[in-house]
Amino acid sequence: MPIIFLPQNEIPKHYLNILPRLPFALDPPLDPQTKQPIGPDKLARLFPEELIKQEMSSEPFIAIPEEVRKLYALFRPTPLIRAKRLEEYLKTPAKIYYKYEGFSPTGSHKTNTAIAQAYYNAKEGVKRLVTETGAGQWGSALSFACNLFKLDCQVYMVSSSFEQKPYRRILMEMFNGKVVASPSRQTNFGKKLLKQDPHHPGSLGIAISEALEDMLTDPHSKYALGSVLNHVLLHQTVIGLEAKKQMEIAGDYPDVVIGCHGGGSNFAGIALPFLADKLEGEGKAKNLRTVASEPKACPSLTQGDFRYDFGDTAQMTPLMKMKTLGSDFIPPKLHAGGLRYHGAAPITSALVEHKLTEAVAYDAKETLQTGVLFAQLQGIVPAPESTFAIKAAFDEAERCRKEKSAETILFNLSGHGHFEVRPV
Amino acid sequence: MPIIFLPQNEIPKHYLNILPRLPFALDPPLDPQTKQPIGPDKLARLFPEELIKQEMSSEPFIAIPEEVRKLYALFRPTPLIRAKRLEEYLKTPAKIYYKYEGFSPTGSHKTNTAIAQAYYNAKEGVKRLVTETGAGQWGSALSFACNLFKLDCQVYMVSSSFEQKPYRRILMEMFNGKVVASPSRQTNFGKKLLKQDPHHPGSLGIAISEALEDMLTDPHSKYALGSVLNHVLLHQTVIGLEAKKQMEIAGDYPDVVIGCHGGGSNFAGIALPFLADKLEGEGKAKNLRTVASEPKACPSLTQGDFRYDFGDTAQMTPLMKMKTLGSDFIPPKLHAGGLRYHGAAPITSALVEHKLTEAVAYDAKETLQTGVLFAQLQGIVPAPESTFAIKAAFDEAERCRKEKSAETILFNLSGHGHFEVRPV
Repeated sequence: MPIIFLPQNEIPKHYLNILPRLPFALDPPLDPQTKQPIGPDKLARLFPEELIKQEMSSEPFIAIPEEVRKLYALFRPTPLIRAKRLEEYLKTPAKIYYKYEGFSPTGSHKTNTAIAQAYYNAKEGVKRLVTETGAGQWGSALSFACNLFKLDCQVYMVSSSFEQKPYRRILMEMFNGKVVASPSRQTNFGKKLLKQDPHHPGSLGIAISEALEDMLTDPHSKYALGSVLNHVLLHQTVIGLEAKKQMEIAGDYPDVVIGCHGGGSNFAGIALPFLADKLEGEGKAKNLRTVASEPKACPSLTQGDFRYDFGDTAQMTPLMKMKTLGSDFIPPKLHAGGLRYHGAAPITSALVEHKLTEAVAYDAKETLQTGVLFAQLQGIVPAPESTFAIKAAFDEAERCRKEKSAETILFNLSGHGHFEVRPV
Repeated sequence: MPIIFLPQNEIPKHYLNILPRLPFALDPPLDPQTKQPIGPDKLARLFPEELIKQEMSSEPFIAIPEEVRKLYALFRPTPLIRAKRLEEYLKTPAKIYYKYEGFSPTGSHKTNTAIAQAYYNAKEGVKRLVTETGAGQWGSALSFACNLFKLDCQVYMVSSSFEQKPYRRILMEMFNGKVVASPSRQTNFGKKLLKQDPHHPGSLGIAISEALEDMLTDPHSKYALGSVLNHVLLHQTVIGLEAKKQMEIAGDYPDVVIGCHGGGSNFAGIALPFLADKLEGEGKAKNLRTVASEPKACPSLTQGDFRYDFGDTAQMTPLMKMKTLGSDFIPPKLHAGGLRYHGAAPITSALVEHKLTEAVAYDAKETLQTGVLFAQLQGIVPAPESTFAIKAAFDEAERCRKEKSAETILFNLSGHGHFEVRPV
C-alpha cells in the first residue's frame, strides 16, 4: 500500500552528524575583522552553547533530548508515500517515493529544528529569540516552538512575503510570534533602506541583518537561523533517518535522493543520512546520486562562486565558505520565497563543489505547473518550494522511462502550500 | 505514544449502515406535491441508482468498491491522536483522543463521500456534477474527486464565503472545479434574489436551490450533496470504523463520542459505528454517550422543530423529516460556514429526538478561542467548524476533572483550518 507509517517508538534517538564523515575538511567560518577562524566565544552572543558545540562537533551521532523527542511525537514520524498514481501518469518503470514533512504543525520541515533550537535556548536561560523569515515557514515554525517553551519570538518577515501572505502572519500571531515587515522601522539598517526606498521589497539577507541588529540590543535575546548552519542541517537529518527505515520496510533503497534547495536544510535532511551510507562504503549506496533543485532566478548552487561571503546584506555575520551570488544580490520576487537566498549551506556547497551532490535549476513557472499536476494526482498541495523537488523527480522518472531503467527515486516534499495558494 | 497509525490494509472494506440498526423507523422523504413517500424513480433524476439504493438500504454493511478503497489509500487510515498535552493543560483525569480527518487531500472528512459519489456517478455514465458549498470544504473535496474520475464539477459557493475565502476558490480551481458565488446570475432563482439585494450574502439553502436548478437544465448532469442524506452519512462511517480499531490498539473504548454538527455527516461518521455497538447491546458501549455540538447562531438540533421541511430555500427538494429552523431561515454570517444550515440530517435529527444523542450549542467566539489554544498545545490548526467539537471535548474533560472521573473522550477533528485563518 502507498503510505508507509512508522510507529512512534521509531522516532530517531540521535541526529546524524555528517561532519566527521565528510572526505574533506570544511573551511571554518572566519571573523570578518581578523579573517581568522572564529572561536566559540564569539558565537556565544548569538547562539546557546549546545548549538555552538553541535556546529563544530566531530561526534558521528548526537543524542536527541527526550523532551524534544516527546514534542516530535506531535507529528513524527512523518509518512513516506509511494507516488503510484504519479508513476502511472508518467508511464515510468521507476518507483517514486516521497517523504511528507507537511504533516508538521506549521506545515513544513522547519519545525524539526525550531523545536530543538527553542529547547536548547530555553534550557540555557534565554528569554527571547529573534529571527527572519522569507516565505514564512521558518517564522511560523519558530513561533510555534517558542510558544511551547514560553520564549518570546520576534520575526522579521521579508516585506514582499509579508504583503503576499497574510495567512502566514496570522499563523505566527496565533502562536504568539511578533511579526514585522522587513525592512522595518525597528532597526537602524531597516530605517536606512526605507529612506532610500519606502516600498523596498526586502530580502532574506536584509531580514537577517535586522534580526541580528535587534538581538544585539537585548542581552536576554539570542538569534535563531532556519537553514544554512551545520546545526540546523543536523536537526533535519531526522527526515532521512526515518526515510531509511521506511524504505527498508518497503524493501527498497533509493538510486536518487532529491530535495529542493534554498539554504539547504530540507535537502540535507533527506540526503545526508543516505549519503552517509555511501561515504561509509555501504554496497547498496554505491551508485547513489543526490540532487539539489533550485530556482533559475536564485541559482546559488549552479551559478554561484565557492568563496567566503557574508550571510547577510549588512555584512554582520561571520564569513562563511559557500556557493554564493554575493551578499548584495537581491533575488527577484518569487512565489517560492523560501528559496530566495543569495548563498547556500557550507555543507551542501562543499558537497556540490566536491561532486558528491548534483545541482539542477528550474524555472519557477514550470515547477508550479508540475506542482498542480502533483496535487491532482496525489492529493497534496505542495509548498511552492517543494515543487522544485517534484519537478526534478519528474525529470528523473522521465529519464528512467526513456532508458527503461527501473530505478528508485526518493524526494522530500518539504511542506504543503496551504498558506501559499494564490491566483495564478 | 500519542499518534496511533493504522496500516493501510486496515482501511475499511465496508461502510456501516445504521438504518437497519435503529430502534425506530425513519420517516420517509415525501413528494412535496403529493405528500406521499417519494419513490426511487423520482430521485433518479438527482442521483445515480446505486446512491439511491444506499439511501434506503436495509443491509447492515455495504461493500466499499476496490477503486474507492484504492483512492482512500491516498490518505487513509487517518491518524488517531491522544491529546496528552491538552489533558495536562486541563489537569483532567480523562483521556482525550481525536481522529484527524484533516490529513485528507482537501483538508476535511468531505473527501470520504466525495470520492464515493464521484465513483458511482462516473460508473453510471454521468458527465457532470453540480453542487453547493458553504465554507468550501465540500466544494473542494468534490472538485478533487470529480477530477480523479474526469467528471466536470460546478460549485455554487455561498457568496459570503466566496468573498472571505479566496484560497478555497483557488483550491477548487486547482482541481478543475468551476466556482461561482451564490446567489449567481447563472440561475433564475439567483437572478431573482440579486434583484432584491445585489449584495445578498447567500446561504446554503439558496446555493442548493441554484445547484438543483442548474442540474435540471442539463440531462448529463446530476446533483451531489455533501451532508444530510443517509448515503452521505453512510460513507463517513469509515471514520468511526477506523477509530474503533485504533481505540482497540490503544486499549481503550470511549465513554463519550463528540462531533461538530452542521448537516450531520462528520458527527455521524465518528459516532454511528460506536452507537451501533450500543444498539447491538455490546457491554463496553452500555454507557456510551454521543454529543453533537452546533453554533448558537444556527441551532437546528437544540432549538429546531422536528417536522417535515424542505432542504433548500426555493423549496425544490423532497420534504424531509428533520430538526429544522425553517427553510427560509438565513443564519447570520459565521466563520464556521460549514455549520450554517437551517436543517439537520434525518438520521441525527431522529437520534436527538429519541434521546440517543445529546445536542449542545456554543457561541462561535468561545469555540474559536478554544481552537487557538488547541493549535498551540497540539500543533494542529483546526477548521472553524471543528472548534465546536473541541469546545465540547474541553467541557467534558472539565466535568471529568470536577467529578474526578477518568473517562475516555473521543472527538472528530473534522478538518484543518489552513484555508480559513483570518485576522481575529
